[in-house]
Amino acid sequence: MTDTIAPEWKTSEWLNTPTPLTLESLRGRVVFLHAFQMLCPGCVMRGIPQAQRVAELFVGAPLIVVGLHTVFEHHDAMKVESLRAFLQEYRVRFPVGVDAPDPDGRSIPQTMNAYSMQGTPTTVLIDARGVRRRQYLGVHDDLLLGAELQTLLLEVDS
Amino acid sequence: MTDTIAPEWKTSEWLNTPTPLTLESLRGRVVFLHAFQMLCPGCVMRGIPQAQRVAELFVGAPLIVVGLHTVFEHHDAMKVESLRAFLQEYRVRFPVGVDAPDPDGRSIPQTMNAYSMQGTPTTVLIDARGVRRRQYLGVHDDLLLGAELQTLLLEVDS
Amino acid sequence: MTDTIAPEWKTSEWLNTPTPLTLESLRGRVVFLHAFQMLCPGCVMRGIPQAQRVAELFVGAPLIVVGLHTVFEHHDAMKVESLRAFLQEYRVRFPVGVDAPDPDGRSIPQTMNAYSMQGTPTTVLIDARGVRRRQYLGVHDDLLLGAELQTLLLEVDS
Amino acid sequence: MTDTIAPEWKTSEWLNTPTPLTLESLRGRVVFLHAFQMLCPGCVMRGIPQAQRVAELFVGAPLIVVGLHTVFEHHDAMKVESLRAFLQEYRVRFPVGVDAPDPDGRSIPQTMNAYSMQGTPTTVLIDARGVRRRQYLGVHDDLLLGAELQTLLLEVDS
Repeated sequence: MTDTIAPEWKTSEWLNTPTPLTLESLRGRVVFLHAFQMLCPGCVMRGIPQAQRVAELFVGAPLIVVGLHTVFEHHDAMKVESLRAFLQEYRVRFPVGVDAPDPDGRSIPQTMNAYSMQGTPTTVLIDARGVRRRQYLGVHDDLLLGAELQTLLLEVDS
Repeated sequence: MTDTIAPEWKTSEWLNTPTPLTLESLRGRVVFLHAFQMLCPGCVMRGIPQAQRVAELFVGAPLIVVGLHTVFEHHDAMKVESLRAFLQEYRVRFPVGVDAPDPDGRSIPQTMNAYSMQGTPTTVLIDARGVRRRQYLGVHDDLLLGAELQTLLLEVDS
Repeated sequence: MTDTIAPEWKTSEWLNTPTPLTLESLRGRVVFLHAFQMLCPGCVMRGIPQAQRVAELFVGAPLIVVGLHTVFEHHDAMKVESLRAFLQEYRVRFPVGVDAPDPDGRSIPQTMNAYSMQGTPTTVLIDARGVRRRQYLGVHDDLLLGAELQTLLLEVDS
Repeated sequence: MTDTIAPEWKTSEWLNTPTPLTLESLRGRVVFLHAFQMLCPGCVMRGIPQAQRVAELFVGAPLIVVGLHTVFEHHDAMKVESLRAFLQEYRVRFPVGVDAPDPDGRSIPQTMNAYSMQGTPTTVLIDARGVRRRQYLGVHDDLLLGAELQTLLLEVDS
């Protein structure tokens, strides 16, 4: 799964950014990709807050936090109007893409499927060359996450 | 504000109950009325969990926990389909009424207005005779809340 | 165990009070007796903070919080000099008695033995007439504790 | 302060290790030095638990967690008998040295003075060559701490 170029994400919409982001355009920076659903308690209670702290604490580092709204259940309940209000109320400032629905109507959206994510929250660490280095289901310990981010950040400088 | 008969709530829909509830039909029981919005962080993080603990810990007592979805902002983001998914994901089992929208299109729904609630979460304690005894904006300390509930519960028996 | 007059405590020393307290002298007030050891993690992390919140939140009520240092292990490690520093550092302001050592040299001190306490923290609720109404090993839920305190407090007024 | 060889510690006693440790003997490993007092609430509530998590999560890495009991107040209250019981009750397994008292009777012990520590808890990160790289008063954020540890750990391998 890891140590290969991370698949380009497929999105239908972006929030918190004037223009859509592509993974390819982010080469040179470490990407902290946080896949979540706005009605997933583990995401709201722990995953999103961790992503927000990463964005705040590593400001100035060659790192970008990107959210991905990977809705795979309750699709009618988590449309983009609801997501927009959610991001505002929870003060999520980082860019968030909406994972593109499956063209054949399956419940799993396209990027979630391409990354073989098993649920939400899922965090993916992508290095500056675009290689997927780590992928976690659930919330990783802050100490270990800090260590793993630093490994990727130190590679950027060398 | 307090110590008068609590206004009957006005609702457009009910979840987690086979039939709509009226406040009047609950006479004889203490009513813990929890007004919330599903996208209000303070409600999700602290208010709803407190209401759930009250429901669990006082099971067997003459007390009912009733939720009221008092949407006063982001109306399109918190429709009943979203609320239904929210209740399922957060395992909220107590009955929840949807506060009826203002007929003239103002943002504050009818029950919220009748109770002069200033925001969410708001908790209202109504005694077994239907008298509104306490109303808090925000989340009250558990020790004090337990004490105030007990005052009302002991009146039921006497 | 409960519903009988609580045994008078036996103490060798008092801190945070100009004169020793006797249980009998506290008739007319609810007594929240918190038995702890200064090196017991559950006491430090949860029991003492709960007792402090009770003391703060019920100020003005006919209630007194009393600590009892019931050392039953590591006796040399928890002498009164250490306890005094502990109370200062943790800002414990309520009166604390030192449970009197067993005269025959057994490890369990006298009050702990008289109350049949099984460990620390133990909380005992004694009503205004001196009757032991509840005794918990461990830390009780704040909501239920608030309710039980209120039951005893309402009896004082009637 | 940083980026010079860390002063050798001066200790009067060691716990949780069969033989005293010297800083010099730890060359080749990153040293996480945690200076604490057993009656300091910030140490007990946050500093010690963080040090324990570092020890657990980085097991297998070329890193050692070392405690230093730097008593600068309430000296009579925190003698070695009390410290020994504290370590047992809080399940602190890493080696802990007792900072040597000042020979002229001043309150600040020798290592605390040599490192110019301003209070407890203080954490010092020393790299594998013995250079003091970071020193924090208080508790550092886990994400940043993990990143800083990783910087030092990656240097060991290269």
